[in-house]
Amino acid sequence: MSKTVAVVGATGAVGLEMLRVLHSRGFPVRSLRLLASARSKGKKLRFADTEIAVEPVTPEAFAGIEIALFSAGSSVSAEFCPLAARAGAVCIDNTSAFRMDPGTPLVVPEVNPHRIREHRGILANPNCSTIQLVVALKPLHDLGKVRRVVVTTFQSVSGAGARAMAELEEETRSVLSKRTFVRDIFPHQIAFNAVPQIPQKAAFLDGGHTVEELKMVNETRKILEEPSIGVSATCVRVPVLRAHSESVNVETERKVTAAQAREALVRAKGVAVVDDPANQLYPLATLAAGKDPVYVGRIREDSSIPNGLNLWIVSDNLLKGAALNAVQIAEHLL
Amino acid sequence: MSKTVAVVGATGAVGLEMLRVLHSRGFPVRSLRLLASARSKGKKLRFADTEIAVEPVTPEAFAGIEIALFSAGSSVSAEFCPLAARAGAVCIDNTSAFRMDPGTPLVVPEVNPHRIREHRGILANPNCSTIQLVVALKPLHDLGKVRRVVVTTFQSVSGAGARAMAELEEETRSVLSKRTFVRDIFPHQIAFNAVPQIPQKAAFLDGGHTVEELKMVNETRKILEEPSIGVSATCVRVPVLRAHSESVNVETERKVTAAQAREALVRAKGVAVVDDPANQLYPLATLAAGKDPVYVGRIREDSSIPNGLNLWIVSDNLLKGAALNAVQIAEHLL
Repeated sequence: MSKTVAVVGATGAVGLEMLRVLHSRGFPVRSLRLLASARSKGKKLRFADTEIAVEPVTPEAFAGIEIALFSAGSSVSAEFCPLAARAGAVCIDNTSAFRMDPGTPLVVPEVNPHRIREHRGILANPNCSTIQLVVALKPLHDLGKVRRVVVTTFQSVSGAGARAMAELEEETRSVLSKRTFVRDIFPHQIAFNAVPQIPQKAAFLDGGHTVEELKMVNETRKILEEPSIGVSATCVRVPVLRAHSESVNVETERKVTAAQAREALVRAKGVAVVDDPANQLYPLATLAAGKDPVYVGRIREDSSIPNGLNLWIVSDNLLKGAALNAVQIAEHLL
Repeated sequence: MSKTVAVVGATGAVGLEMLRVLHSRGFPVRSLRLLASARSKGKKLRFADTEIAVEPVTPEAFAGIEIALFSAGSSVSAEFCPLAARAGAVCIDNTSAFRMDPGTPLVVPEVNPHRIREHRGILANPNCSTIQLVVALKPLHDLGKVRRVVVTTFQSVSGAGARAMAELEEETRSVLSKRTFVRDIFPHQIAFNAVPQIPQKAAFLDGGHTVEELKMVNETRKILEEPSIGVSATCVRVPVLRAHSESVNVETERKVTAAQAREALVRAKGVAVVDDPANQLYPLATLAAGKDPVYVGRIREDSSIPNGLNLWIVSDNLLKGAALNAVQIAEHLL
């Protein structure tokens, strides 16, 4: 039952987490091929007790591969997922290349696992900020049918990759010591700031939304299989290294009390409720970093509408928001 | 026409800004008395070209004072504002002590200046996060009548005072160099984090809201004179030194297009529209720090409801959010 696996984009922030997650969850890997761009040629990465050389992504590289995890950018996925699928691999793609393709399942295993078997060689992993949102919304949707969501994100710089994390640290040191700093990744100072533009270099869309905001709208609807859910998203980069936080206002068709919501979330798969304000306990990015669950707290009724709830949702964007969700999909394929 | 002025809490983060704003706006000060707690005894502060000794707050200290600006904590205001008012001073109080008192006007001069003349010796300055919200909401309310607001704040540490700013800097240095750090002000690591609890030491209220969140609900209704406006607030501390950012979703009774909103905000007093996403221009805390306006950008229609708008509102919490608004009220008294 063990599988031949390829990780495409193995040297990136998400790729490295994929290797760690495959190992830590004991995924049955018969052989592992690590693929990346030509820049990484000659690199070697550890997996379990072995060192594996990184190879370039070529059409031939997928021969004999059964499961291919992609996280090397949309253009790489757009070109190589179809080739890999034709060569017999099942691709789990962490980019946006196929997410909104009607023939490609967009899967969060806690939410819509039944879609996995519909794949035709490609399964899409949703955007990090969407995954943690729908994991927390699903139990509330089952209880009271979600009608509208207003979400504001506090997204960590690791969503922009390992170099972005280094840039935040270096810029922070520069600000503290009043040195000048030349940015490479972000359009504005991210140290000690809040920047409402994600991704940092993509053009804004018609209507003034960012690409990230539109992803949250469309992917939430597709995963919950409710094209009529209203989603208003504002996505903001904050000087946090790892884990995204989300302030979420939910309107349901039927009343869901805070107590009912809490109870449903406590029982929900993949969710950890941290909600003890009397002891100053609520989810925090620094505590979620490196952990698997989607943490939910600050669960309270919003009296500005009849059926309103507020939630504070925090999860590690590189784990549940990317690598862990992809490996969980792969586990369902076994 | 010049006035005898007292600043109570003169040595604090807001008190020092009050001195700067009085001077920079050329407020006609005949004489200035600086009051603070016994801790500050012996301190001297500069105002214009003179050095002024800080005196303790006592009932006698208000003799002959015409205008008293208070920013030394609610308990000091609760005790001394009535005494100062009885001695003939008009108090402009930056604490929450009298804000929700029905007999005390709660004033943002751009929004409800007509309330100023109703004072009976005390005028309340609203909470920082409320002031910047209502300055941006007022022109939209005039256009389409605001029905509901969902706001999530990104609040800087200067709202917790000068020592909190030092704590963020020191903790940030410690995290970067992997040293341990013993916090004094904040309940959790604030460096590289987002903490959904403001104020940092007050108990949560029934229903799970924080004191800051309830302030935003109640003060917004009082200032806009619309007790039926629905307000859902989530207040979050972020590792920003100065200036609060707010992600705001507005529902109006009559349709207001993004173009109409932008036009009204461009004309609105106290507002600076920064909204040119094609050139990556939107309000930022680092750019608003030390400046007077309420900056508004990311103005866009929210298609999840018929009459929805999203805004990104940023302003200096120590200036328009505190000292500047108080001095503007004082100017109306001249």
